[in-house]
Order: sequence, then structure tokens, then C-alpha cells
Amino acid sequence: MFIIGELINGMYKEAGRAIREKDKSVIQRLAKRQKEAGADALDLNCGPVSKDPVLDMRWLIETVQEVVDMPLSLDSTKANVIEEGLKLVKNKAIINSTSADSEKLEILVPLAIKYNASLIGLTLDKNGVPQDKDRRLELAARIVADCQEKGFPVENLYIDPVVLPVNVAQNQAGLVLEVLKEFKIISTPAPKTIVGLSNISQGTTKRRLINRTFLSMAIAADLDAAILDPLDEELMNTLITSELILNKQIYCDSYLDAYRKR
Amino acid sequence: MFIIGELINGMYKEAGRAIREKDKSVIQRLAKRQKEAGADALDLNCGPVSKDPVLDMRWLIETVQEVVDMPLSLDSTKANVIEEGLKLVKNKAIINSTSADSEKLEILVPLAIKYNASLIGLTLDKNGVPQDKDRRLELAARIVADCQEKGFPVENLYIDPVVLPVNVAQNQAGLVLEVLKEFKIISTPAPKTIVGLSNISQGTTKRRLINRTFLSMAIAADLDAAILDPLDEELMNTLITSELILNKQIYCDSYLDAYRKR
Repeated sequence: MFIIGELINGMYKEAGRAIREKDKSVIQRLAKRQKEAGADALDLNCGPVSKDPVLDMRWLIETVQEVVDMPLSLDSTKANVIEEGLKLVKNKAIINSTSADSEKLEILVPLAIKYNASLIGLTLDKNGVPQDKDRRLELAARIVADCQEKGFPVENLYIDPVVLPVNVAQNQAGLVLEVLKEFKIISTPAPKTIVGLSNISQGTTKRRLINRTFLSMAIAADLDAAILDPLDEELMNTLITSELILNKQIYCDSYLDAYRKR
Repeated sequence: MFIIGELINGMYKEAGRAIREKDKSVIQRLAKRQKEAGADALDLNCGPVSKDPVLDMRWLIETVQEVVDMPLSLDSTKANVIEEGLKLVKNKAIINSTSADSEKLEILVPLAIKYNASLIGLTLDKNGVPQDKDRRLELAARIVADCQEKGFPVENLYIDPVVLPVNVAQNQAGLVLEVLKEFKIISTPAPKTIVGLSNISQGTTKRRLINRTFLSMAIAADLDAAILDPLDEELMNTLITSELILNKQIYCDSYLDAYRKR
């Protein structure tokens, strides 16, 4: 599984303060610790209250790249923030994210092509997040078709079915698990699949338990990638064990350590 | 999920000694504790070294029924042990188990009908446990057909795909997860599905982690029942949370407690 560390996000208290005060040490420690814990890429999000998101995103990228060399996921709803970020990313970039709206696709797919970036496509549009499976499939197919049309390789597209919190939309998680497999039959080659894991437990009292339980179920549904907290050790144990059970990690008595020492 | 507590089994040290010495208190405590922890039924197994399994099974049933009134799963490879047990069970009985061999089915299906018991059917025969999905399906279909022919209601049949330890047959767990859903399309009404959970982690160093990770994956594959250790609190938390995610338990902040207080 491709793991994108979620912790460098202005929404979180520690990172939010560091971004405001331009405190490099906090961000760099979060970058190094997430990498050590198993992250394959880092998500960078200036947070909802950033006054100058272009400046903040540039600062985040430069700050992180001083200490790690790894793919960076540029997480913003603003295309100009993403474009300015793409200019600075040295390793592989991931655009997080486009919706299925054509205005978004018109801008972000060409950017992904230009900068050889991966692209996360959310199955939502102006009408919001679909409450059913068919509509999610339809929006995913629209994103895939748009990528094909524009010449963006679908192997670099990650479809995100948009996980909703289990306490407010309890029937949605099961639908998401079902549709994850169905995304794979939209095209050949198939798009990859991704979830923003922590959404599932937003507002609940058992966040980590719900996150890791849902993750193992999603991995069993062939999930390719997740944005998650790699410092949650039990979550990572669940992830590694899920891959073991599905024969994607070789068993040895110390398989958890072996994974971490890769 | 229908939970069958696995702890009254002569294979385990404490229960084995209690069965040999006819120490009621140990067995009765295991019965009560498993029930309190969420078991819907109790598995009773005299263990591999019982010298008189008919006598031991009778003693187990009587001992357990002095303190709990709940379904009992009579776990023996010997038909006469099961038959003598069935005569004593006051609540619902579960026959654990038949294979797909006709000699077994000839005896055990009529017994299940006579005593209005449920029946666990393992997808194995004299050739052993299949290493592929199709053969498991074929053996399951053979058991289902035999039940239909003899007039045993398929709703009371639990098909067990036979989980193998992940450290010796690493490709099997994924096949089991796939075939669990496929068992459901063998007949209408569909047979139920069950796993002996602890097998997945036999001989590994991370038994509980592997058990609970596999359980959530199997629940996502529509598993109906499992034989497991209900005293493993984290396992039960995973089970309850899996059902929550699949919308089979209603969310409230104290959903774990609410489940346990049912």
C-alpha cells in the first residue's frame, strides 16, 4: 500500500501553529517521523485559516525538502496553490485533489500532465458527495474518461470514493467498500484507489479503533493507497498485518519489524 | 455476528486439566465469562487426548447447562460423541462438524434433522483441505445439495471454508475471503458462513493482531458466524466496530458498551 502521511496539515494544532509562525523544526520533525514510520509520501495542507496559502504551501514544500526526499501530495482546493507548489516539488508530486467538475478537470489534469504528477480524483461534484454507489461510479468514470481524453495515464490517477464519518452517514462505509472494487473495472489499465482514512471516524469517540478496522476492510477491497497517520502504531500494525494476510508481505515471526526496516 | 466461544476445549491447558479432573468450577467459569463477553453459543470439545469422549462430552454439557442456558456447539470428529451429546442439549445444538464426505453426511445430516440442530459443514474431504477456491466451492455445493436432498434447512447450515495458518499457507487467507461471498450464491436461501478464527494465526508470534485483522476482513466479506475467543477484548472491539462500519450496529458514542450491555 502506498501510504501518504497526513500530519502536515494546518488543521492540526501543532502544524497549524508551526505554519503561522514559520517554525521549520516542527514541520521537519513531522516529515522525518512520518517517513521513518512508513510513509511513502507526505500530504501538505496549509489548513483552512491560511491567509496566504501560496506562500504557506511554498514554505511547506521547501521546509520539508530540506530534510526528506520523497513524493509530496499538494493538498488544496485552490488550483493556483497547487500550480505554484508543483513548480517547487523535486521528487514526484501528487495533486490532492480534483473533483469530477469539468472546471476543475480542465485545469488540474493538464497540470498533472505538465508536471508529471499523480492525481487524486474525488467522486464528488457541485452537488456534493453522492449517497449511493452508482453515482460514485459515474463520477469516477467521468474523471477517468477526462484523463484518457486529455492523455493523462490512468495508472497515475487515484480515485477517492470520499469516506464519510460513520456517526453521521452510517450506511456509507459499506457502500465505499463495495465501490472500491468496482472502480477497478472502469478502465484498462485500472485507476488506483485511495481513501482519506481519518474521515471515517471524524467526531467519534473511538477514532483509532474505527480507523484501523475500516482500513483492514478497505485493504481487503484492494485499496491501493491511503492518507493516514503513520505515527499511529496500531494502525500501522493493522496495515502490515492486512497485507500479510493478503499475501502482499512475506510471513516471518518478526514481520512487523521486517516491514519497518525495509 | 453469531459468536461461538472457543475456550471450552481440552486442547487448552486449563480446560484440559478441568476435563480430566472433572473440575466443574473451571468449566462453569469459562462458560459464564464467555457468555458475559458476548458469546451467543459455546463450543464444547473434549480435546485430542480424551480417553472416553462420550463420557467427557456428556459431563461438559451437563456441567455447562448447570450455569448457562444457551446454544451448544458439539465439537467432535466422532459421530457417536455428537449423538450422545445431542440427547442432552436443552437449548439449540450445533453439530461441529461434518466434512463433504458422504459417509459423514449420511450420519450427521439426519442427526441434525432429528435433533433440530444447526450443522457446520467444512469444505474438506478425504483428500484434505483444498488449496483453491473452486474446490472449496465444489465441496460446499456438495454439502448444500446433500442437505437439500435430505430435507435439512440450508439456513441452519454453516459452511466453513477452513482457514489455514497464515505462516504455512500464506495465499489461502485471501482465497477464503473471496470464497466466503461466493458460498452465498450456491443456493436460495443461502447457507450461512463460519470460520474457526484462531486457525489463521496458529504458530505465529502475533496471534491476537492477526486474528482481529482477519476477522474484520471476513466480516466485510459477509461472514455470519465465528468460533473465537470472546475474552479477547480487542478482538471483540474489532468485531463490534466492524459491524458498526457495516451498519449492523447503530452508532452512539458508547457503542462498544452499548453492544456489551445488550
